[in-house]
Amino acid sequence: MTFSYEFPEWITQNCASIIREVNDRGAAVSDFISLALGNPAAEAIPIDAIRSAACDILNTNLMPALQYGPSSGYAPLLEQTWERLTKEKQFPDKDQMLLLLSGSAQGLGLIPQILCRPGDIVYCEEYAFPNFINASRYAGCRPIGIPMDEEGMIPEALEETVGRTCGKILYVNPNFQNPTGSTLPLARRRKIYEIACRHNLVIYEDDPYGDIRFHGNPIESFKQMDTENRVIFAGSYSKTLSAGLRVGYLFGNPGLLSPVFRVRNNQLGQNPLLPQMIISETLQRIDFSAHIESICRIYRRKSRIMVDTLKEYGPPDMKITEPEGGMFVWITFPEETDCGAIYREQFAAGVGAVPGCGFAVEPEKPWHSFRLNYTALPDDLIKEGARRFCSLAHRYIG
Amino acid sequence: MTFSYEFPEWITQNCASIIREVNDRGAAVSDFISLALGNPAAEAIPIDAIRSAACDILNTNLMPALQYGPSSGYAPLLEQTWERLTKEKQFPDKDQMLLLLSGSAQGLGLIPQILCRPGDIVYCEEYAFPNFINASRYAGCRPIGIPMDEEGMIPEALEETVGRTCGKILYVNPNFQNPTGSTLPLARRRKIYEIACRHNLVIYEDDPYGDIRFHGNPIESFKQMDTENRVIFAGSYSKTLSAGLRVGYLFGNPGLLSPVFRVRNNQLGQNPLLPQMIISETLQRIDFSAHIESICRIYRRKSRIMVDTLKEYGPPDMKITEPEGGMFVWITFPEETDCGAIYREQFAAGVGAVPGCGFAVEPEKPWHSFRLNYTALPDDLIKEGARRFCSLAHRYIG
Repeated sequence: MTFSYEFPEWITQNCASIIREVNDRGAAVSDFISLALGNPAAEAIPIDAIRSAACDILNTNLMPALQYGPSSGYAPLLEQTWERLTKEKQFPDKDQMLLLLSGSAQGLGLIPQILCRPGDIVYCEEYAFPNFINASRYAGCRPIGIPMDEEGMIPEALEETVGRTCGKILYVNPNFQNPTGSTLPLARRRKIYEIACRHNLVIYEDDPYGDIRFHGNPIESFKQMDTENRVIFAGSYSKTLSAGLRVGYLFGNPGLLSPVFRVRNNQLGQNPLLPQMIISETLQRIDFSAHIESICRIYRRKSRIMVDTLKEYGPPDMKITEPEGGMFVWITFPEETDCGAIYREQFAAGVGAVPGCGFAVEPEKPWHSFRLNYTALPDDLIKEGARRFCSLAHRYIG
Repeated sequence: MTFSYEFPEWITQNCASIIREVNDRGAAVSDFISLALGNPAAEAIPIDAIRSAACDILNTNLMPALQYGPSSGYAPLLEQTWERLTKEKQFPDKDQMLLLLSGSAQGLGLIPQILCRPGDIVYCEEYAFPNFINASRYAGCRPIGIPMDEEGMIPEALEETVGRTCGKILYVNPNFQNPTGSTLPLARRRKIYEIACRHNLVIYEDDPYGDIRFHGNPIESFKQMDTENRVIFAGSYSKTLSAGLRVGYLFGNPGLLSPVFRVRNNQLGQNPLLPQMIISETLQRIDFSAHIESICRIYRRKSRIMVDTLKEYGPPDMKITEPEGGMFVWITFPEETDCGAIYREQFAAGVGAVPGCGFAVEPEKPWHSFRLNYTALPDDLIKEGARRFCSLAHRYIG
C-alpha cells in the first residue's frame, strides 16, 4: 500500500527559487560568472578577529556553548546589540524588546506565521526579498505587491491597496532594497508610516543593508519615527560580520514580540549559543564602526566597477539604478525587450543575473529587469560579468 | 494613541513552562537542588574532542562556516548520519530523506505547522514532551493525550480515540519516554503501527534518548517496521555529543519531508554550518559507539544512585518507574496525595522536581507524579536531592 498525505493547500505551493535556478544552471557552464549571489565579499569578513574570538571561547568558555543555554540567547550580545540600536541608531528604548534570532531570516518565518491567520493579506514591495513572499505564502497568507518606482514603494499605491484589502503587515526594505537597490526618501517614509497608523498595519522594517551606505546620508528609519510603537525592526550581523554564523535580531513592541519569543521557544527551541558568542567576542575585538566603513569602501569600489562597466558597454536604453549602498544593481530594459530570451541566453554567454520575475509577488506579470550582485566576486570578474551581460543585451535592444 | 494588535487565538494561548517555573522559583532558594533540568552530564560531553575538532575547523576551513552555505547542511554530516541510520540502525534506505535541523526541536515546530491546518487534531502520550504539545497548539492544532500505563501509550486507548476524532499525526517517544521513563514494548509498537496504517496517521517517532540504553535490549523502532513509509524519525546529537550545538535531524518519506525542507528553507533559512561541522569533525575523532557506551555507564550509575536513594528514603507508597535508559525517573503517589502541596513545599525543602501536570496534555486533570532528572547533577547532589524529596513526601503520605 502506498501511503499518501494531504497537506494544507498553502504548503503545496511551489515557491521555486530563481536565484538557486540561476546558480544550478550556471554550474553546468564552464567559466560561468554568477551575478546571482547575495554573499558578502570575502574581504569584508573580519576572519582573523572571528578566528581569534572563537579560539578564545574554545579555550576558556566552551562548556556553556555545549549545554542548553538561555532561550533569550547570549546576554552580552543582547546588551551590545541593544546599545547599538538605542545609542548609535537612537531607536526608542522604552517599551521595546530585542530578540536574537538565527539570522534575520528566522524572523521572516516567524512573523507572518505568528501575526497572521491563513487567508490574511500582507503587503510588500512589488519586487521584494523572496523569503518574505514565500514565508508568508507558506503561512497561508496572501502577499500583495505595492507598485514601486525608482524611489521604492509608492505611498499612494499603498494607500489605495490597503483601503480595499485590509491587510495586517507591511514588509518594507527601506535602504538599498533587495532587489531594486532603491532607497525610500524621508517624505515617503513619513507618508507610509502615516498610512500604517491609519490602517493599523504592523510595519516590518527589514534593514539588513542599512549600515552599508557608501553614498549620501542616512535617512530616518521607520523605527526612529515610531511614535505608535508599531514597527518591528529586523537587523542582522550577516552583512557586516558573517552570514554563515546566522545571527540576526528583531527589535520592537513587546506586545508584538513577546508572543514571537514565546512561540519561537516552544516551536523551534533555542538557537545555538556558539555563533552568538563568536559575534559578541568579535565585536569586543574590532572597532565595529571602522569595520563597517571599510566594508563601505570595498562595496563603493565594487559597485563603481559594475556601474561603470554597465554604462560603458551596455546599450543606451538599458536603465541602471545606481545604489547608494547595499549589494545590488538593478537594470531595467525597455518594455518591448524580450527579457525572457535574455534570461535564457545568458547561460550560453557565461553569465548569470537574476530575472526580475524571481522577486515579483506576481511573477506571471510582464517584467523587464535584472538584479546584479557586485559584492561576491573579485573586481575583474565583476567587470567581465557585467561586460558579458552588456554584449548579450546589445543583441536584444538598441 | 496606543497601538493594539489582534493575534490568532491559538497564538495567545499561554503555554507556560513549568520546568522553567521550577528553576526560576528555585533560583531564589539558597542551596537549591534542581531535579528539573534535562541537561546531559558535563562528563558525558566529549569536550576535548569537540575543542580539538573546532580548532581544526578554525585553522583550516573557517571561511565556509562564515559564508552562506548549502541549505541542506554540511554534506559530510549528512553522510555520517545517513550511514549510522541505515547501516547501524538498519533503517530502510529506499525512498527516505534526511534533513539536518537546529536540534530535533526544530522539527517539533515544523511538523505540526506544515502537516496540519489550524483546527486539526494530533495525538501524543497523555504525558509528553511539552515542546510538542505547545508547538502543535501554537500551530493551531488540538493535541489529544492518549492514556498510558507503565509500558507507555495504550494501543487500545489510541484506537478508541482515533476512531472518534480523525487526527493526523501521532507523536510518540518510544524509548525512556520524557517524562515517564517508560519504554514501549514491541507488541505495543506493532499494534500502534497497525492502528496508524488503518487510520492513515503519520507517526512522528521522537527518539532523542534511544541510544542511551543502560539496561535491557534495544526494541525494534517504528521506523524499522515502517513498511508503509509513514514514520518520520527524529534523532539528535544533543544527548550524545552536545545539546548546545543544536544539531538534530528528521529521517523519513521524501513525500513528507520535501515540503518540510522547502518550507524550512523559505521560512527560516539555513541553519548555521559551524555547529554541524563541529559535530561532523568530532565524530571523525572519537569512537562514537564507545562514547555512547561510556555515557550509558555514567547514566546507569547516576540512575542507580537516584533510584536506590528514593527506595531507601521514600515512603513505601511512592511508586518509582525505573528507567532502562535516558535521563528521567518518574514517581507516582497514591491518588489521595496532595501533590500540589508537595510541589509548592519542595522549594522550602530546597529541591525542585517537575510536577506531572507540567507534561500533561490536560494539565487541569488530577495528577500524582513527578519527573526527576539524574543526569545533570553530580552524584552527591542526586543523592541529597532525592533524599530531600523523600523527606518531603513522608510529610504527605504513609
